[in-house]
Amino acid sequence: MKKSIDLESMRHTLSHVLAAAVLEIYPQAKFGIGPAIDDGFYYDIDFGKVKISDNDLAKIEKKMHAIVAKNLPMVKRMSTKTEAMNWARDSRQDYKIELIDELNEKDEISFYDLGDIFTDLCKGPHVENTNDIGAFKLTRVAGAYWRGDEKRNMLTRIYGVAFATEEELEAYLKRQEEAKERDHRKLGKELDLFCFSDLVGAGLPLFTPRGTELRELMANYSLSLRGKEGFKKVWTPHITKTDLYKASGHYAKFGDELFMVHSQVNGEEFAMKPMNCPHHAQIFASRPRTYKEMPVRYMEATTDYRDEKTGELGGLSRVRSLTQDDSHVFCMNTQIKDEVKRLVAIVKELYTTVGMQKLRARLSYRSDEDKYLGDKKLWEMAQSQIKQAAIDNGLDYFEQEGEAAFYGPKIDFMAEDALGREHQLATIQLDFVQPERFGLEFTNKEGKKERPVMIHHATLGSIERFLSVFIEHTGGWFPFWCAPEQVRILTVNNQVSDYVEKITAILSDIILEEPLKHNELRFFIDDSADTLGKKIKRASEMKIPAVLIVGPKDAESGEVSIRLRDKEEKVKLTKLADYLKKLK
Amino acid sequence: MKKSIDLESMRHTLSHVLAAAVLEIYPQAKFGIGPAIDDGFYYDIDFGKVKISDNDLAKIEKKMHAIVAKNLPMVKRMSTKTEAMNWARDSRQDYKIELIDELNEKDEISFYDLGDIFTDLCKGPHVENTNDIGAFKLTRVAGAYWRGDEKRNMLTRIYGVAFATEEELEAYLKRQEEAKERDHRKLGKELDLFCFSDLVGAGLPLFTPRGTELRELMANYSLSLRGKEGFKKVWTPHITKTDLYKASGHYAKFGDELFMVHSQVNGEEFAMKPMNCPHHAQIFASRPRTYKEMPVRYMEATTDYRDEKTGELGGLSRVRSLTQDDSHVFCMNTQIKDEVKRLVAIVKELYTTVGMQKLRARLSYRSDEDKYLGDKKLWEMAQSQIKQAAIDNGLDYFEQEGEAAFYGPKIDFMAEDALGREHQLATIQLDFVQPERFGLEFTNKEGKKERPVMIHHATLGSIERFLSVFIEHTGGWFPFWCAPEQVRILTVNNQVSDYVEKITAILSDIILEEPLKHNELRFFIDDSADTLGKKIKRASEMKIPAVLIVGPKDAESGEVSIRLRDKEEKVKLTKLADYLKKLK
Repeated sequence: MKKSIDLESMRHTLSHVLAAAVLEIYPQAKFGIGPAIDDGFYYDIDFGKVKISDNDLAKIEKKMHAIVAKNLPMVKRMSTKTEAMNWARDSRQDYKIELIDELNEKDEISFYDLGDIFTDLCKGPHVENTNDIGAFKLTRVAGAYWRGDEKRNMLTRIYGVAFATEEELEAYLKRQEEAKERDHRKLGKELDLFCFSDLVGAGLPLFTPRGTELRELMANYSLSLRGKEGFKKVWTPHITKTDLYKASGHYAKFGDELFMVHSQVNGEEFAMKPMNCPHHAQIFASRPRTYKEMPVRYMEATTDYRDEKTGELGGLSRVRSLTQDDSHVFCMNTQIKDEVKRLVAIVKELYTTVGMQKLRARLSYRSDEDKYLGDKKLWEMAQSQIKQAAIDNGLDYFEQEGEAAFYGPKIDFMAEDALGREHQLATIQLDFVQPERFGLEFTNKEGKKERPVMIHHATLGSIERFLSVFIEHTGGWFPFWCAPEQVRILTVNNQVSDYVEKITAILSDIILEEPLKHNELRFFIDDSADTLGKKIKRASEMKIPAVLIVGPKDAESGEVSIRLRDKEEKVKLTKLADYLKKLK
Repeated sequence: MKKSIDLESMRHTLSHVLAAAVLEIYPQAKFGIGPAIDDGFYYDIDFGKVKISDNDLAKIEKKMHAIVAKNLPMVKRMSTKTEAMNWARDSRQDYKIELIDELNEKDEISFYDLGDIFTDLCKGPHVENTNDIGAFKLTRVAGAYWRGDEKRNMLTRIYGVAFATEEELEAYLKRQEEAKERDHRKLGKELDLFCFSDLVGAGLPLFTPRGTELRELMANYSLSLRGKEGFKKVWTPHITKTDLYKASGHYAKFGDELFMVHSQVNGEEFAMKPMNCPHHAQIFASRPRTYKEMPVRYMEATTDYRDEKTGELGGLSRVRSLTQDDSHVFCMNTQIKDEVKRLVAIVKELYTTVGMQKLRARLSYRSDEDKYLGDKKLWEMAQSQIKQAAIDNGLDYFEQEGEAAFYGPKIDFMAEDALGREHQLATIQLDFVQPERFGLEFTNKEGKKERPVMIHHATLGSIERFLSVFIEHTGGWFPFWCAPEQVRILTVNNQVSDYVEKITAILSDIILEEPLKHNELRFFIDDSADTLGKKIKRASEMKIPAVLIVGPKDAESGEVSIRLRDKEEKVKLTKLADYLKKLK
């Protein structure tokens, strides 16, 4: 039996094996750095004038297998800075010279020898022998600036993936392939959900009718769950004087990350809101409050703007215009548990509905550091209320001290998608600081002024990011209730228009009530002159959940053929509405 | 019978009478300018060290009446610049000196003598004699910088109103009083619809739950009318690279009016969108189009930002954050009439629903000037299609050449409110230029590329401005379907909670379907310990359309007392749902 392998060490060793193989084929190669990463390893290499592409990977990989097969030991050797520098100069490894030059004489400097074929400056750890190496594969070539500095040389980064066994590697590659198929950027285009425009800019998606339908359904569903629990919609503008963030304290912390808005007319300065809490606090503060109306619960699906770097933008995962399904509770200290419990239940319900019921929750508490603001007793009371809310809801939770925000403890939810990837989306955060900074208060039963606690919550998080996950989770096969186009009618020929009218009369009256109320059926008729085959292909490419195929025989028998993703069946026209209402 | 009076001349003469009266009481007064205005007249006066307030108006008005009663003639007299200057110097009228100084020797300079008691430099026209003066009243005192320049002296402006008859003056003052009562800024606060925050800034309203309910209902209703006609919602971000406006041509025209957005991270420049057409054009351009899918119809209720001057901001009438119920049709030249007709019908339907059915429409055409872009034949064809659409809809319209936008002809709608004031809200605008500038095209039946026409339309216009009109039009007594709180249940004492539960079970099931579908009843229970009188007063102040008063006797008889704005009646519980559904 093969012994249990430390994956990180193995992957790290593989980057050395990669370098050794490269050096055999390209003796002039100069090496940058080559670490282990999440699923494998890479090495940044300067190939001089030689251009390396994906086509070269096979021969390098072959050479790597030959090296591994030699069962070479990996041996650590300590060195002085002078010895190290001599080695780097002798072997003309310019990048290593630069790295060694920055070391101190007193630093522990170590080398690893791969048998007698390759030596590299390295801290390790590594496996003891190449026979400890499992399954691996080189995957792709990319460009990477030396030390991430775009003013330095562009090196060639060769990526590989590695796992303990061939089976695991295969499974991983298959998952990768599937993830590529499900890539929301690809599906976003194929299913006509959203687009980008060079004239509008990176990170600023524009949603087409189908994508808008999807995002509105999700936002409406999310808000409807809170609507049942007494949350009321509010509306706030997207810009504000920076005074708001000076008062809230955000300006001191994040002031230089704000998108600044400038009036050319009179020079006034505004900022785009990157969050909504200070705006909502202003509405709370707009009139006197008493304990009778507490908790006050506001919600708003509104777009915030965050100044992400262009290089970090990609599809909907990271955007500059992020729409939050945001809400804020203003409550008394004693109401925290009930409010949090309500929100946890909503998170569970929503993620169950979208098929991501496997949820983990991190309860983040304060530590003894003094970076946390607000009364310590209040924190402790709040933390125990949060924990009780988690227990009452049967949450799969874990606790972490020192992970709280400076303004209060919180719960972050990690949802698992169909490919087993975890995504942090929903969050519930207590806030003791903003009520203080804005001087929020209500009159309590004793007629005295008291400070409320704020509870921030977003169920989807950012709608754009949620959609990036949801599109990949479903692979574009959206649940029936939220598919932008739920039903498409395909005509076999042009002799069924009367019958199609009968069908559409039925479809027009269908209203789904679960999970979102008053969800009118969205259908479309493809009665073009194209062949049925072509029409079916088109409907299938658009991943329409229910395709009704209508020919003269169906008209005669009063039936329709319904083609779902995984089956096809005949349904009587009289049963059609019930049939569709039951689709998941 | 009194002869027909030229109101403007009469009002202008009254400003002289005002000055004459002031001069009798305050001989040191120096006069600026004193024109006729819409409903009366004013005079800007420097009273030196004397402070004039509203309290001084009575005595000035009394003196004016005495002057008018003298039946003094108004006589025009021509003058040279030198004579005029001598007069001004002799009478120490410093402001007049400045005005005369700016005249040319050759200018026609005229004076008007009011009998022998007052002379003023003036172009006229005036009535012939003060016995032509009808009814008037001084209304208020305000400050006004000399020549509108805040670096010059602050003068005292005295306002008066004047009409042909006492009856008209009375009616006007009553309307003014009513308008003051209905002022949307006052009602906005009293009915808790919106608020402002100094920290957020002027012109940036925040909508409370009630106001948000109202704005969403109006926006949803407006979009639902277009939804029935094939419009699909899209979603676009609030910022864009300025490249978009450089391409659209807006930048050259309005570039210096844009709110500029600045990235502190990498110095990138964006602008806040002041309109949505270029964004929508990008969605149209995001994939190839054929004649089969034309017209393409997009709609979006989204917030635009316009850099209005602080001094011009007031309540919701003029804001920096204006939410448009915007839409754009991309159609073939031959489809213009049908599309415009559809939109005109929607405008008529919406304004009838909100009780402002008295609509006038201005059809704005091109003139022969060469400022209009696009093919002249296309313009003419489009103008005749617009006109036909107006006729087909039975619109009360008038035509104006030379009033079109440079990019295409348009229809502007003027709606009359309950106080007889006209408001320009809805608009339909054709656009031949943007499709050209963005290179928009579709493949026509012949397989050739063709350019679409764009049709801009907003039914409400800006939702904020519409609400400012609608709140004043209704005086806060909103139609039942769109009242933020439609029903309030008041308990007579604490022995009716079981019965109240029965009632709320009924109310919870009520869904209105007209004019907006699936409009769930919004109700609230006031079972506080306050007296019934206090509860009724509160409900009445909040202008709740239907107030249900529930006491033990009602519980026994299975009835409820319903108090509407203008009547009160008993309704059987079994009939309650039908009763409420029928309320207007």
